[in-house]
Amino acid sequence: MPRYKILIKYDGSEFFGWQIQPEKRTVQGEIERVVNMMARSPKNWIRVQGSGRTDTGVHALAQVAHFDFPFDVPAEGLRKGLCSKLPFDITVTAAEQVADDFHAQYSAHDKTYWYRFSTAEFKDPFKYKYTGHWHRKLDFAKMEAAIGDYVGEHDWISFAASGFQAKTTIRTVYSAKIEAHPEDEEIWFEFSGSGFLYNQVRIMVGVLLEIGNGVRPVDDIQRLFTVRDRQEARFTAPASGLYLKSVDY
Amino acid sequence: MPRYKILIKYDGSEFFGWQIQPEKRTVQGEIERVVNMMARSPKNWIRVQGSGRTDTGVHALAQVAHFDFPFDVPAEGLRKGLCSKLPFDITVTAAEQVADDFHAQYSAHDKTYWYRFSTAEFKDPFKYKYTGHWHRKLDFAKMEAAIGDYVGEHDWISFAASGFQAKTTIRTVYSAKIEAHPEDEEIWFEFSGSGFLYNQVRIMVGVLLEIGNGVRPVDDIQRLFTVRDRQEARFTAPASGLYLKSVDY
Repeated sequence: MPRYKILIKYDGSEFFGWQIQPEKRTVQGEIERVVNMMARSPKNWIRVQGSGRTDTGVHALAQVAHFDFPFDVPAEGLRKGLCSKLPFDITVTAAEQVADDFHAQYSAHDKTYWYRFSTAEFKDPFKYKYTGHWHRKLDFAKMEAAIGDYVGEHDWISFAASGFQAKTTIRTVYSAKIEAHPEDEEIWFEFSGSGFLYNQVRIMVGVLLEIGNGVRPVDDIQRLFTVRDRQEARFTAPASGLYLKSVDY
Repeated sequence: MPRYKILIKYDGSEFFGWQIQPEKRTVQGEIERVVNMMARSPKNWIRVQGSGRTDTGVHALAQVAHFDFPFDVPAEGLRKGLCSKLPFDITVTAAEQVADDFHAQYSAHDKTYWYRFSTAEFKDPFKYKYTGHWHRKLDFAKMEAAIGDYVGEHDWISFAASGFQAKTTIRTVYSAKIEAHPEDEEIWFEFSGSGFLYNQVRIMVGVLLEIGNGVRPVDDIQRLFTVRDRQEARFTAPASGLYLKSVDY
């Protein structure tokens, strides 16, 4: 059976995250339902494998998934069929046939997350589902000075939420960027890495905001790598600002 | 009692429009609830008067309303109090004390509506609540050639939804603009006028789209003014793309 790779864009606001769960509306659940309907497989045996989970409220600009389809159809036709049957908060932006050994999770080389943060005094009605928000004094220069400390291979245990089940907490961050967008009262963060632990990106953003606010010193990221203590960084930036931007293979 | 004028921004997606209704979540209902709470008026006697209604799903960048408040408080403090108590999909962007004879509806001189239209092949998950969408061939030049016919004093009865209760259907449109935003696959419309009948802006957009699609000739707007028939223009563009942009006094 041919294997297809798809790129998926979704507004996570009304989903209980990516991963399929009984009785909950999830992105994976919606896509599996539609793929199985198109495959006319009443027993819903086709599984749609994503590059990884996203949490409740987290968005994706280009989540990647693969599945095996019983018919050898043109990828673009399959994409249009999926788009026309999926709910309005999910769309498939690209589709291609891939080799049988392509795996959306295990073949992934690196992932990029975007975090969109609003510094406005009050939440904007058109942004509250699409940004994190914290109206406190933030020193951009301090965050800019600190963010480079994230780059490299580190043990991220101080940045992991409890409840994670990874074999190792060693990960490599390839790049970490911060951008000011004063005209929109926003600050954007972007992180690329080999992989991220559960809630890691949101805790990384939380630590930077506390550095910007003066709660932590500018060199505190280095200390957090040394102390290896999950209790040291407990401020997790809201899910609403987080976007899975791309997955590279 | 001092009278206050406020500017209100709201995401209309989760409201049954502006006007207060029993058992329904409306923008006016939410604001009246908070104003009365802040005024400590348990009988909810304070009425919040808007510049006019907006329908279910219609947004506002700057709806205007007035109300009389029992305490003479600084407008900016009142604004912040409202913002902090209103739900996240409504915010108050400005507040000022005004003369007792200021009336948000009757003092209004003109209103501007913005219509945001997506021409993308499929609805974008981040836009479907915030744009109208119609994936058909649209000749921008034809719409551009036609839109000027809206300007001026006309009898708009062909553009009125049934069920309206206006004394007269004569209104003046001061300006009518169309803008292409090809990088976002969007077309924007903007109309300023002395006032608009129920659904008038959405029908005006619908007629333009039908002209762009070739269903109607380019000079059909002139004919619609002449025939004076509510059955002639029945395609009403979706509420999701419509924004009350400003009200001038």
